[in-house]
Amino acid sequence: MSPETSPDDSTATRWTGADAPVDPVAERLRSPERVTALSDGVFAIVITILVLEIKVPAHLPTSSLREAFHELRPTLVAWIISFLITGMYWVAHRDIFARVRAVNRDLVWLNLLFLLTTALIPFAASVLGEYPDARIAIQLYGVVVTLTSLLRLALYAYVIRHPDLMVTQAPRHRTRQGFFLAALPIVLYLVAIGFAWVSTTASALLLFSVPVIYFLAVTFARDRGDATSEAEDFS
Amino acid sequence: MSPETSPDDSTATRWTGADAPVDPVAERLRSPERVTALSDGVFAIVITILVLEIKVPAHLPTSSLREAFHELRPTLVAWIISFLITGMYWVAHRDIFARVRAVNRDLVWLNLLFLLTTALIPFAASVLGEYPDARIAIQLYGVVVTLTSLLRLALYAYVIRHPDLMVTQAPRHRTRQGFFLAALPIVLYLVAIGFAWVSTTASALLLFSVPVIYFLAVTFARDRGDATSEAEDFS
Amino acid sequence: MSPETSPDDSTATRWTGADAPVDPVAERLRSPERVTALSDGVFAIVITILVLEIKVPAHLPTSSLREAFHELRPTLVAWIISFLITGMYWVAHRDIFARVRAVNRDLVWLNLLFLLTTALIPFAASVLGEYPDARIAIQLYGVVVTLTSLLRLALYAYVIRHPDLMVTQAPRHRTRQGFFLAALPIVLYLVAIGFAWVSTTASALLLFSVPVIYFLAVTFARDRGDATSEAEDFS
Amino acid sequence: MSPETSPDDSTATRWTGADAPVDPVAERLRSPERVTALSDGVFAIVITILVLEIKVPAHLPTSSLREAFHELRPTLVAWIISFLITGMYWVAHRDIFARVRAVNRDLVWLNLLFLLTTALIPFAASVLGEYPDARIAIQLYGVVVTLTSLLRLALYAYVIRHPDLMVTQAPRHRTRQGFFLAALPIVLYLVAIGFAWVSTTASALLLFSVPVIYFLAVTFARDRGDATSEAEDFS
Repeated sequence: MSPETSPDDSTATRWTGADAPVDPVAERLRSPERVTALSDGVFAIVITILVLEIKVPAHLPTSSLREAFHELRPTLVAWIISFLITGMYWVAHRDIFARVRAVNRDLVWLNLLFLLTTALIPFAASVLGEYPDARIAIQLYGVVVTLTSLLRLALYAYVIRHPDLMVTQAPRHRTRQGFFLAALPIVLYLVAIGFAWVSTTASALLLFSVPVIYFLAVTFARDRGDATSEAEDFS
Repeated sequence: MSPETSPDDSTATRWTGADAPVDPVAERLRSPERVTALSDGVFAIVITILVLEIKVPAHLPTSSLREAFHELRPTLVAWIISFLITGMYWVAHRDIFARVRAVNRDLVWLNLLFLLTTALIPFAASVLGEYPDARIAIQLYGVVVTLTSLLRLALYAYVIRHPDLMVTQAPRHRTRQGFFLAALPIVLYLVAIGFAWVSTTASALLLFSVPVIYFLAVTFARDRGDATSEAEDFS
Repeated sequence: MSPETSPDDSTATRWTGADAPVDPVAERLRSPERVTALSDGVFAIVITILVLEIKVPAHLPTSSLREAFHELRPTLVAWIISFLITGMYWVAHRDIFARVRAVNRDLVWLNLLFLLTTALIPFAASVLGEYPDARIAIQLYGVVVTLTSLLRLALYAYVIRHPDLMVTQAPRHRTRQGFFLAALPIVLYLVAIGFAWVSTTASALLLFSVPVIYFLAVTFARDRGDATSEAEDFS
Repeated sequence: MSPETSPDDSTATRWTGADAPVDPVAERLRSPERVTALSDGVFAIVITILVLEIKVPAHLPTSSLREAFHELRPTLVAWIISFLITGMYWVAHRDIFARVRAVNRDLVWLNLLFLLTTALIPFAASVLGEYPDARIAIQLYGVVVTLTSLLRLALYAYVIRHPDLMVTQAPRHRTRQGFFLAALPIVLYLVAIGFAWVSTTASALLLFSVPVIYFLAVTFARDRGDATSEAEDFS
């Protein structure tokens, strides 16, 4: 921040090496700083309030406390998986915005919509923790993470198609991998939603193995990358 | 932060190109950094805790879960609209502070009052989600967003009238547009509050279409701007 | 952050204009950046979760909704006052850390204790909103804000007495004013706690007028300052 | 942020003093900035929502309010201790990342796992505050803080073993101290978990004295350090 607030910036316009004068207000409006600050805040809250759903009833006799913990197990599992899934989105968001040099109105609002669906994850997780065997609870969870994945894909696609917003353009084979990695969870989530009509257990298992499958896919994509620092494109 | 904490800054005063010595403490007190950090934090929490209001009752038979979701619909709608309205305020806040080079005591406290009314939005949204047909719930919501809009207008007006706090002065036709865009939601919200005495449905519809109307108004204002980067003044 | 992560920093030591080599790790450990980031986060949460205490009971008949709002009035008042009191502490924290160039272990932990008492304000406010006429609720609130004020005084005193941690040393008459402004709320809160044995109403009124009295005291202190930028020392 | 978004960075590669061209995207992917921002956000929420567990029942007769406060004492103690323990982890995290110049995929995910266990502390604290005499509640708390300590040790070990991620390498005697300080709480927590089968009171006392023991151990380690700024390695 400080370089932007230094007295030097108070001059109305400033010439870069290029031909166009740079309007300092326009430059600050294009800065992704507050967009990532808001996003980090939302992610921090989402992964932390997930745990508020894990509650032990008050005033139980001590003897039945162990049983109460036992009943919390689906909630705890739903929470750990949701934490990992949300972490996955944060890592993807960080990877995308490492490419972003400037934001515009579309990107700001697309990001807000992405945060909107992300903020629904604790709600979906709490329903699933409460009703782990209900088809509708699994499908609700599936819909929420599918929507979040779709918006993550939209964010990625928007950035890739606007080279003027990027630090450097990504090499084409990287972009292909990026689209594949962003689309993979969507396919898996949709299959899981469909599976729920057949077997809720199978559906939940697939839903919850997405972070692992995704992690392996990223590892594979990185291994196929050339041995340069570019290979760190996806975390 | 780091440039400010570098040893170079430890010299008591430092001369800029201008004639006045710059007191480094005064410079840091005028920095908007922590004001925007606190604001981003509050906005992140507000848009995320809104969703804590969406709750499915525990221990329902699975068969009645679908019905429980059905009953959640007004809450869900109130939440999505409130998310968009709060997002609108965050975007406006970001636009305003892109102009701000320095803050003073008045601006710090005006910003805190703006955050105070913003923090009331989840409360108003939860009441509206619980009582979607009650006139008083709609009017409470209307009052909260009207107050927030008034403080956003006050923030904008204060900044525009203090050129010493700005990076660069805004061109006059931009300022006129800025005041119009800040005042528009206030008028719409007041009409919606009045409408509630006639028809709560019409009032709620108007209330909830404000983000759309505002978005179109911004688009229109941007299109009328000259084809320079200045056209990005309002997101 | 970026200047610290630039490759230039990877050299083990770096010579400043002074005689001592600067250890880059030590420099980063002394940076107040994450201390203020954590503090801004805590303040953002405290002022926002205060509002979670304002709740309208579910499933009321619409006719009794107005009455339910009426009953919320003490909670709403307790919330607005607590927001202003917490805002006051944030402003004071920002003023103190505008002087701070480097932190050490003592300052980091003193700041954590200050955040601990600040985090108790929503609890005290919710008790007071629920039991506005109970002497013990008023006194609990008084004790929490007194402790917070004491730690704010301790933070200020620690910084003032460690010139090596400061950007520039404060002039002596400013320091005197600073101690007076930090001590004033403590005296007022203690009087309010005592008053509670005589009249809970008088005690609550005094408690709640502290932000106003403090604001006037700061205004007076600023007016007495010389007409330089130094006059902005207290916001 | 701003130096990274300046037009100069838009050149595809940039040569440092070393022989390798620096890919600006890779450099931003390696920046620890957003990792510490997310961590500070999670820590701020964890230490603040801990206090949401402290609740006074509504609609009590004023006469029984004092008794209600009395019953809150175990919760209040569990909260203060948990605040100090969480603060201890934040301080340790800040110390570790003061050494970190660059992050990679492993470090990003290790940090997320550390945040996962940290986010469980409010849950464990609320159970312990509700059931202060139950062995299983004490042991649950012990397990959560042991896991958090193990991940903190893993973070430290990972950083120390990857000199390419560090600002400067730590001197060997410092590293030995660092491992000792990171391992000490684990041993103490495990002893406390074991003690719970003998005496819950002794177990709780040991659990709650860990911050004090740790604080003394850090003081001792610092005193043994050479009289340079290095001595500030552990806060």
